[in-house]
Amino acid sequence: MIITIGREFSSGGRELGRKIAEELKIPYYDKEILVEISKKTKYSYGYIEHFGETKPMPLFPVKLGVSFSNEKTDANLALSLDIFEATKAILTDLAKKGDCVIIGRAADYILEEFKPLRIFVYASMEYKIKRCREKGQEDDVSNLTDRQLARKIRSIDRQRRDYYEFFSGKDWGDRLNYDLLINTTDLDIDSLAKQISGEIKRKK
Amino acid sequence: MIITIGREFSSGGRELGRKIAEELKIPYYDKEILVEISKKTKYSYGYIEHFGETKPMPLFPVKLGVSFSNEKTDANLALSLDIFEATKAILTDLAKKGDCVIIGRAADYILEEFKPLRIFVYASMEYKIKRCREKGQEDDVSNLTDRQLARKIRSIDRQRRDYYEFFSGKDWGDRLNYDLLINTTDLDIDSLAKQISGEIKRKK
Repeated sequence: MIITIGREFSSGGRELGRKIAEELKIPYYDKEILVEISKKTKYSYGYIEHFGETKPMPLFPVKLGVSFSNEKTDANLALSLDIFEATKAILTDLAKKGDCVIIGRAADYILEEFKPLRIFVYASMEYKIKRCREKGQEDDVSNLTDRQLARKIRSIDRQRRDYYEFFSGKDWGDRLNYDLLINTTDLDIDSLAKQISGEIKRKK
Repeated sequence: MIITIGREFSSGGRELGRKIAEELKIPYYDKEILVEISKKTKYSYGYIEHFGETKPMPLFPVKLGVSFSNEKTDANLALSLDIFEATKAILTDLAKKGDCVIIGRAADYILEEFKPLRIFVYASMEYKIKRCREKGQEDDVSNLTDRQLARKIRSIDRQRRDYYEFFSGKDWGDRLNYDLLINTTDLDIDSLAKQISGEIKRKK
């Protein structure tokens, strides 16, 4: 059983994935994937963390087939494609090794042939802001107004959407690409994880 | 606790709703709503069953504000609006009476102020066709090829989408309008109902 979790930023997807993995006693891959990509390519961890889940930019030269590309564009595109190819190879390796939970990176699409349980997690902006402040994943959160924080959250989600849609050709967060979509607003992630993993255990 | 269930045709939404209601020992409203609408308006049950979950057609005169409407158009529009107003009044009455499960009819939108648990149920076309043949909800199903049946299913869903979007102004089946979206493909509706109602009981 491979479980993939797509998620809006700060909606609790990562926590949900980690807890499901703990309950099921199976590996959980998130940042670990970045380390592997870094090993497999010539790019540093920090570089991959920054570029790993974005789409190639700008797209004009590629889409229009016009040759006004420049060195920087070509390099960016090559970088994105390199990283995506490495991601594909690593995720496939991980899935072959056995049951696991994988966060983000269009894993639901990449691992299609393994018929994963595809979960998507989202929440209201109000809740995501609250959660982001409580969890303090971002160092500079306390300096931001709610409005600025909302903009930041939207911008990260836009990157995830662009990455997903560029590589998979499908709509990020559209029910048709998932088995279960959960609005985590005001939900207890702990009990949600227990419930989902309980159901998975029951079925095995 | 009001539970609303939006659903693709033949995805098992009605069965899921009925079983959740049974588990929770609360009323379940589906066709019952049509009876009430029929009582509250001058339209027959059959008429409402046919027109009750469709959008007013054609929309041109209304949208463009141009007066090339004719009697038939005006009558259709009036009918749809009448039925929608009656639906609103009835659903609000039912929700005020207490906990219940309501199927379709943009109840999630109409009953927004009651903060319902908003579920949306969908499935693969292959599964919906299989289910439709097994359940035999439609008399003439056996005479249809898979292709014809798929067209029929899509057409019913298009009506539901149009109804929902016309009256709510929101996207039918878009995660942002729901708390939980479940792909029922190959799932056991019975155990799904038990799981969801179990969680609702636990929270109360």
